[in-house]
Amino acid sequence: MKKAIQVGLLGLGTVGTGVVKILANNANSIAQKVGADIQIKKIMVRNPDKPRSVAVDDLITTRLEDIIDNPDIDIVVEVMGGEMPAKDYMLRALQAGKHVVTANKDVMARYGRELFAAAEENKLDLMFEASVGGGIPIIRPLKQCLAGNKISEVMGIVNGTTNYMLTKMTNEGLDFEEVLAEAQAKGYAESDPTADVGGLDAARKIAILASIAFGARVSVDDVSVEGIASLSKADIGYASELGYVIKLLGIAKEDEKGIDVRVHPAFVAKNHPLAAVQDVFNAIFVKGDAVGEAMFYGRGAGEMPTASAVVADIIDVARDIQHGVSSRILCTCFDQKPICPVEKTESQYYVRLLVEDKPGVFAAIAGAFAAELVSLNSVIQKRKVNCCAEVVLITNRVPDANLRSAIGIIKSMSVVNQIRSVIRVETETIG
Amino acid sequence: MKKAIQVGLLGLGTVGTGVVKILANNANSIAQKVGADIQIKKIMVRNPDKPRSVAVDDLITTRLEDIIDNPDIDIVVEVMGGEMPAKDYMLRALQAGKHVVTANKDVMARYGRELFAAAEENKLDLMFEASVGGGIPIIRPLKQCLAGNKISEVMGIVNGTTNYMLTKMTNEGLDFEEVLAEAQAKGYAESDPTADVGGLDAARKIAILASIAFGARVSVDDVSVEGIASLSKADIGYASELGYVIKLLGIAKEDEKGIDVRVHPAFVAKNHPLAAVQDVFNAIFVKGDAVGEAMFYGRGAGEMPTASAVVADIIDVARDIQHGVSSRILCTCFDQKPICPVEKTESQYYVRLLVEDKPGVFAAIAGAFAAELVSLNSVIQKRKVNCCAEVVLITNRVPDANLRSAIGIIKSMSVVNQIRSVIRVETETIG
Repeated sequence: MKKAIQVGLLGLGTVGTGVVKILANNANSIAQKVGADIQIKKIMVRNPDKPRSVAVDDLITTRLEDIIDNPDIDIVVEVMGGEMPAKDYMLRALQAGKHVVTANKDVMARYGRELFAAAEENKLDLMFEASVGGGIPIIRPLKQCLAGNKISEVMGIVNGTTNYMLTKMTNEGLDFEEVLAEAQAKGYAESDPTADVGGLDAARKIAILASIAFGARVSVDDVSVEGIASLSKADIGYASELGYVIKLLGIAKEDEKGIDVRVHPAFVAKNHPLAAVQDVFNAIFVKGDAVGEAMFYGRGAGEMPTASAVVADIIDVARDIQHGVSSRILCTCFDQKPICPVEKTESQYYVRLLVEDKPGVFAAIAGAFAAELVSLNSVIQKRKVNCCAEVVLITNRVPDANLRSAIGIIKSMSVVNQIRSVIRVETETIG
Repeated sequence: MKKAIQVGLLGLGTVGTGVVKILANNANSIAQKVGADIQIKKIMVRNPDKPRSVAVDDLITTRLEDIIDNPDIDIVVEVMGGEMPAKDYMLRALQAGKHVVTANKDVMARYGRELFAAAEENKLDLMFEASVGGGIPIIRPLKQCLAGNKISEVMGIVNGTTNYMLTKMTNEGLDFEEVLAEAQAKGYAESDPTADVGGLDAARKIAILASIAFGARVSVDDVSVEGIASLSKADIGYASELGYVIKLLGIAKEDEKGIDVRVHPAFVAKNHPLAAVQDVFNAIFVKGDAVGEAMFYGRGAGEMPTASAVVADIIDVARDIQHGVSSRILCTCFDQKPICPVEKTESQYYVRLLVEDKPGVFAAIAGAFAAELVSLNSVIQKRKVNCCAEVVLITNRVPDANLRSAIGIIKSMSVVNQIRSVIRVETETIG
């Protein structure tokens, strides 16, 4: 048994600072759990002169070698973010015989397989609880607590920025641009909000969750992605009227057609537990053949929540070191499974369109849907806009391809002025 | 590495049957995760002639020795329930060198320390994920995923029977007795519902959660317990009017006074995530210094959900066996901490009382509260009942002792007809 486990930190931004704070604040209880002190030996940063909110000046270095070639260091903790050079650094750490803990969704969603192979080859641990859902325990629950289940579905609100924005749009009746400006002013959205608003951040996270849930590697490139930039307050209003809220969901389902994995805004029934997830909170809903429905809820980002997950991984690796074991649970992607093309995925759809306000228009639209085998659940004429009428309809469950070709036909009809929105409806409720 | 890990099952009731089913249904994926088949070698039952829904006749025995003295068996899975003889059997299994997995909250809430000592002495695993929250991952998340946190609070709906009953009372305006009769008819409540309705089942679970959360042993005998039998639909109605729902909560908090651990019905603000937990679902809400708020939600009981957690533990022990490690995470109660006497615990309180409808009564009651240093948040005269008025009030946060002595004084006042209800208000909201 070691008396101290030494950590090398790659990066000292928001999350890295949080890790330093937790290891200091809760040093005693963590030492009891591990049976050894956990000490930060070195911290690699790009700019050594930047002012820091933690007193670690004597640990700072700019050289990767000071960490990966340091024989005292047991665990390398990567909290730099971004794909490169983070991925290379992790790989080099593993090749140098260091266990790796990372919060990096970008890397895990694209290079998971390669990193796991390196960990396995070198008999090391590679842990990444913080890469999805910030402080919410989700990786370990899926890999361990639900390991007896065949998981059929993982569905989650995994991006705090967009959930904050959608909550604002819903509760205050604001439009996308107004809310984005406010979120940026408050620091909840970055000055370049593309990865959040466009759905890429959520896509990385659902790729990681899908890989674990279905036991087959899903890359971020497999995910069909649509962001929230085109959502209007009108859609949010109609959703509410019809008993739904609009959320940006990461969805992964497995059936005989393969793995259906996508990120898009969706109507969520108000009585679904995900509907109540407000502001920057995240939640991940899981369906398994034994457990039924389970949900994990908490703060999906931020300094201390994300660092909470990183420190949990450090403690777990340290426990492994103390017990002389490693690679106990690595990659669980034992199978290869096809990705279901988005055209073949099935949903209900909400469609809002502007049509000429005259007899026969409803029939013509319904006919066009029917011709593509899209049956309608409900059609409601809402308000009049000048000479036009706004029509809101919800389809029954249909393949995406059929819906898209019906929409193509309807768009070209002379009585149809504009297709304003097409949004999936995730209707299934629990219980 | 073993090619097969052998399991001996103690008990073949609801949960045991679920374990047999999951190990059969998902044998392949479980074998991939473990690197070995998991096989049930023997099942001990009391009545070998009882008809079973799983085909395991050749595995049945009535002799404990066939399991604990069987050199082929690696893991003993206790799913008999009840304190005795289950506790003795587990102890004997550990002494015989078998890893133990249990779903038994009764035993873990009273004999946790003794069993962990035996596991540690014999270098074995002892896992109990199924003992709280059925299929909901909560033991491992607390012991591992949140291990970096100082946990200040665990609060949960941990009894499905009473949550089903309270949901019915709330949604359908029914009274306790009506709902109990229905729950019994549906099989959601047992013919002797005492342990559920009286709060003992929840007390066992919160004792287990508190022990892990605060790193100090809390026994079921430390828990202050109050059930739901005296709740009326009037209280549920007033709660709703005031912006709350009534839930039976297990609550454990730690502060400088010690560990405050109790089970009782409580007003929960409608915007708190626990308020939305309906029917037989369970949810556990955790506050930590790093993670902030997190919640775990799912099915807290039933054959397959509970078996899901048992099988997760079996898989985890099997992974340990395959990697030649054991006792990696056992008892985490490193400290001894005082239990805060219930008189010193602090809450807001809802009080409903029937008073004479004449001038000066409000003032007299308010004066009695003030004399015991109980300040009032709101006082509302509701309806008239014959010559009396029903008064509903909510206090500010006060020590339980002060509230109780104020109630004692008020009860003896000539203008006070009856104290109808005293219910705690758990006001804190998230975010």
